[in-house]
Amino acid sequence: MIGDFKGKHILHGNQFSREDLDRVMKVAEEFEGGLERGGTYDILKGKVLATLFFEPSTRTRLSFESAMLSLGGGVTSVASGATSSAAKGESIGDTALTVSQYAHVIVMRHPEIGSAAEAARVAAVPVINAGDGAGQHPTQALLDVYTIRKELGKLDGITVSLVGDLKYGRTVHALVEILSLYDVRLRLVSPGLLRMPSEIVSSLEGRGMEVRETDDLVKAATESDLLYVTRIQKERFSDIKEYEKIKGSYVIDKALLQKAKKDIVIMHPLPRVDEIAAEVDDYKGAAYFRQVRNGVYVRMALLALVLGAR
Amino acid sequence: MIGDFKGKHILHGNQFSREDLDRVMKVAEEFEGGLERGGTYDILKGKVLATLFFEPSTRTRLSFESAMLSLGGGVTSVASGATSSAAKGESIGDTALTVSQYAHVIVMRHPEIGSAAEAARVAAVPVINAGDGAGQHPTQALLDVYTIRKELGKLDGITVSLVGDLKYGRTVHALVEILSLYDVRLRLVSPGLLRMPSEIVSSLEGRGMEVRETDDLVKAATESDLLYVTRIQKERFSDIKEYEKIKGSYVIDKALLQKAKKDIVIMHPLPRVDEIAAEVDDYKGAAYFRQVRNGVYVRMALLALVLGAR
Amino acid sequence: MIGDFKGKHILHGNQFSREDLDRVMKVAEEFEGGLERGGTYDILKGKVLATLFFEPSTRTRLSFESAMLSLGGGVTSVASGATSSAAKGESIGDTALTVSQYAHVIVMRHPEIGSAAEAARVAAVPVINAGDGAGQHPTQALLDVYTIRKELGKLDGITVSLVGDLKYGRTVHALVEILSLYDVRLRLVSPGLLRMPSEIVSSLEGRGMEVRETDDLVKAATESDLLYVTRIQKERFSDIKEYEKIKGSYVIDKALLQKAKKDIVIMHPLPRVDEIAAEVDDYKGAAYFRQVRNGVYVRMALLALVLGAR
Repeated sequence: MIGDFKGKHILHGNQFSREDLDRVMKVAEEFEGGLERGGTYDILKGKVLATLFFEPSTRTRLSFESAMLSLGGGVTSVASGATSSAAKGESIGDTALTVSQYAHVIVMRHPEIGSAAEAARVAAVPVINAGDGAGQHPTQALLDVYTIRKELGKLDGITVSLVGDLKYGRTVHALVEILSLYDVRLRLVSPGLLRMPSEIVSSLEGRGMEVRETDDLVKAATESDLLYVTRIQKERFSDIKEYEKIKGSYVIDKALLQKAKKDIVIMHPLPRVDEIAAEVDDYKGAAYFRQVRNGVYVRMALLALVLGAR
Repeated sequence: MIGDFKGKHILHGNQFSREDLDRVMKVAEEFEGGLERGGTYDILKGKVLATLFFEPSTRTRLSFESAMLSLGGGVTSVASGATSSAAKGESIGDTALTVSQYAHVIVMRHPEIGSAAEAARVAAVPVINAGDGAGQHPTQALLDVYTIRKELGKLDGITVSLVGDLKYGRTVHALVEILSLYDVRLRLVSPGLLRMPSEIVSSLEGRGMEVRETDDLVKAATESDLLYVTRIQKERFSDIKEYEKIKGSYVIDKALLQKAKKDIVIMHPLPRVDEIAAEVDDYKGAAYFRQVRNGVYVRMALLALVLGAR
Repeated sequence: MIGDFKGKHILHGNQFSREDLDRVMKVAEEFEGGLERGGTYDILKGKVLATLFFEPSTRTRLSFESAMLSLGGGVTSVASGATSSAAKGESIGDTALTVSQYAHVIVMRHPEIGSAAEAARVAAVPVINAGDGAGQHPTQALLDVYTIRKELGKLDGITVSLVGDLKYGRTVHALVEILSLYDVRLRLVSPGLLRMPSEIVSSLEGRGMEVRETDDLVKAATESDLLYVTRIQKERFSDIKEYEKIKGSYVIDKALLQKAKKDIVIMHPLPRVDEIAAEVDDYKGAAYFRQVRNGVYVRMALLALVLGAR
C-alpha cells in the first residue's frame, strides 16, 4: 500500500494495493488521452531524471526517458556499465546519494537483487527500480496490468495463461503478484524444467487464486482470454536437444490462434525471438507493441506521481 | 520524388526531386536565418527523437541531436554498439517497431546495407538513415548540396571536382546522385585504384552529365569552382609504399590554392587527417567547418518536415 | 583575471581573481536560492551543451548536464571513450572545432594534460575543462571554495587541513591555488610518500600563506575549521604493507571528531572508499554530499556566465 505516491520509491510489485494500481492506471489513462489528442505536458519542467543503468537495457531506459521528456522534464543518462565511481569502489548507497544531488528522481537498473532497495535507503530523491537482477522489475508488471485491462476491458473475472519460462522470468513473477489482487484465473504453461517455483504457486493459491499448471498450450489457449508469452532461453538447458524439442511446442502462430478462444489477446514483454511467429503481428489481438507504448504512459504516471505533479 | 514530407522516411539520395531539394533547402535557410538572428524554436515541443546508433558516429549523432534540441524537441539516445535487445537476437524490424513506441522519429546508423529500409518497412514513425554500411547516408549529401549552393550562390552551371577515394566513399556516391539533378560539370580526381565505379560514371553520363576522370589535381583545380576532398584510407592499399606515394599527390595546401581557380571553394565531409593542410583553414574559401554547421540546419529542416511542423 | 566571462574558456584554477570568484559565487548563490524556492530557469533555452568525455567521469558529466538542464538548455553527450572521429586520427583541435558547430558550449574531459587548452585555442565556443589528466579540474576547485565559504561563512581567517594524498591529487593542487587568494592557514596532513610537491609549498609560502606539513591528523584536526579529505590509492604504493599500515591513520571517524575542533567541517571530493567512516555521515558538519549539490549551482553559474546569460 503506497497511498500518497509523492516522494515514494517504486521497488517491488508487492508494494501496490488495488487502490494504488487504480491511481497509477487512472493517471496513465489521462496522459494517454492527452498525448493522443496531440497535447503536450510541461508539468515536470525544471525536473531532472537520472537513468542509472549498471547493465544495459535499451528499451527500458528509452521508455523512461521518453516518459520524462513527454512531461517536459530533462534527462541525464548513464547508459551502460558500472559508473566510473563504482569502478573505484564506491558503494551503491554513496552512488545513489551522490546522484540524488543531480536529479529529482533516479531510475536504476542493476544486476544484483536488492540493489535498488539499497539505493533507496539513502537516496535523497525517489528511486524507481528498473530491474535488479533476478529480483523485481515492478514497472513492467504495472504496464502489463494496464495493458491487460485496456485490451480486455476489465481485470476481474478473466483467465490468463502465462506461457514459456515461468521459472527464471522476473517479469511473470512480478505480474502474478499483482494479478493476485484481482479475481483472475491463472493457467501456467511451461516445460517441466521451467515451471513456476512451487512456493509462488502455493502463495497464490493461499490467497484464493485458481492456478492450474499444464504443458498443453492448445488446451490453455481454448480456456484463456489472454496469453502472456515469454522467451525460453537456450542457456537454461544443459541438453541442447531437449531445448530444440521443447522450443517448438511453445510457439504462437496462426494455427494456434484458430484453435484458441475467440478474440484471445497475445502479450509478450519483448524482445521476442521465435516464440511468436511474424504472421501473428497483424492479428488484431496481437497486443505486444501496444504493450510497449503503454509502458510510456505508465512510466509517465509514476514519474508524475512520485514527483508530486499528479 | 517525396512531395509532402510528413510521415516519410529519408533513406536514399535518389528519393529526391529538384522540388524536394528546393523544399529542404528553403526550410533549412529559414532555420539558419532564425538562429543567426538569435531566435529559438519550439515547433517540436513534446516530440521525441530516438538516435539509434548500432555503430558509433559521434558527429552525425551530435548533429541530429543538436538539430532536434534546437527545434524544442527531446532526445533519447543509443550511442554505440548493438542495442541490448539486438544482442538477444531481436530483428531490426522488431527493434524499429519497439523504438517507434517511444519516439516520434528515429535516426538510425547501422553497419549493414539496407538496414534502414528494413526498419522503415515496419516502423510506426519516420526513419532517417544516418548511414547503412557501404550503402547510403542521404543527409550528408543534402548538407553538401546546401553548402555548395550557399558557397557558390547556385547549383546550375558550376564545375565540381571530387578528389580522393571515389571508389569506396559512400558520401561521394550519394552526392553525385543529387548533383546529377543539376547542370553540373564533374571532374573525378583519384588514384587509379580508387576510381569512381564505372557503372556510376556511365549512369551519370547517361543522364547527360559532363564527367571527366583524371589524376591531375592541379589541372582539375584550375577548372573547378569547388573541390570536394575525401580521405584516402591506408587500409585500401595492399602495398603501403603505393599508399605513401599516392597520398602526397592529393593534398590541398596553399601552393595548390595559388594555382587553382580564383575563389575556389574547398569542402570535406570530415574528419580529415592530412588531405587538407592546416594552413588552408584560414583561407576564406575553406568551407569544411561551415559545412558541418550547415548539417544542423539541413537536419532541422528534415526533422521539421517529416514531423509535419513545416 | 577573467573579468567579463562571456565567451571565455574555463581551463585552469589560476585564471581567477578574487573578483572573478566573487562573481561566480554570487551567481551560484542566486541559482541556489531560486531552485530552493522551487523556481525554474529558462535562461539558456535554445542553447546546447556538448559534454565531450574522452574518458568516463559519471559524476562530473551528470553534474554539468543537470546544471544545463536546470537552466532550460539542452544537452548532447559523448559519455565515454574516444569519439569515433578521434579514432580515425582527427586532432583535438578539429574535434573541438567540429563540435562547436553543434553546441554553444563544450565541457571536455580528456586524459592528457593541456588537451582542454588545445581545444580552446580553435573552438568557436567556450570550452570548460572538466579534467585534463594530471592537469586541472577547475570547476571542482570552484565548488570546493563555494562550499567552504557556505559552511564556514567566510574564506578569510580560516584554517584548513588537507588530508590524504597531496602528491597526485589534481583536486587539492587546484584548490590551494584558489585558497592562496584568501587569508587561509593551511595544514598538509599526508604520509611521507604522498606529500604535497615542494615547489607548490614554496610557491604558496612565497605568496605569504602559512603552510605547515605534518603526519599527525589529530593535531591538525584540533587546529582546523575544516578537513578536506582525499582518497589514498593503493596503487601509489609499491609495498602493500606500507599501504595497509598508513591507510588506517588517515580515516575520519567519530573518535576523531570528538578530539577535533568543535563544529569542524568535513569535505571530500568523492568517491570515498574507507577514508570517512559511514558513522560520520549524520554528523552535521559532514558536508561532502552538500558539496556535490553545490557543484550543480557553481556549474550553472559558469554556464550562464560564459554564455552571457548572467
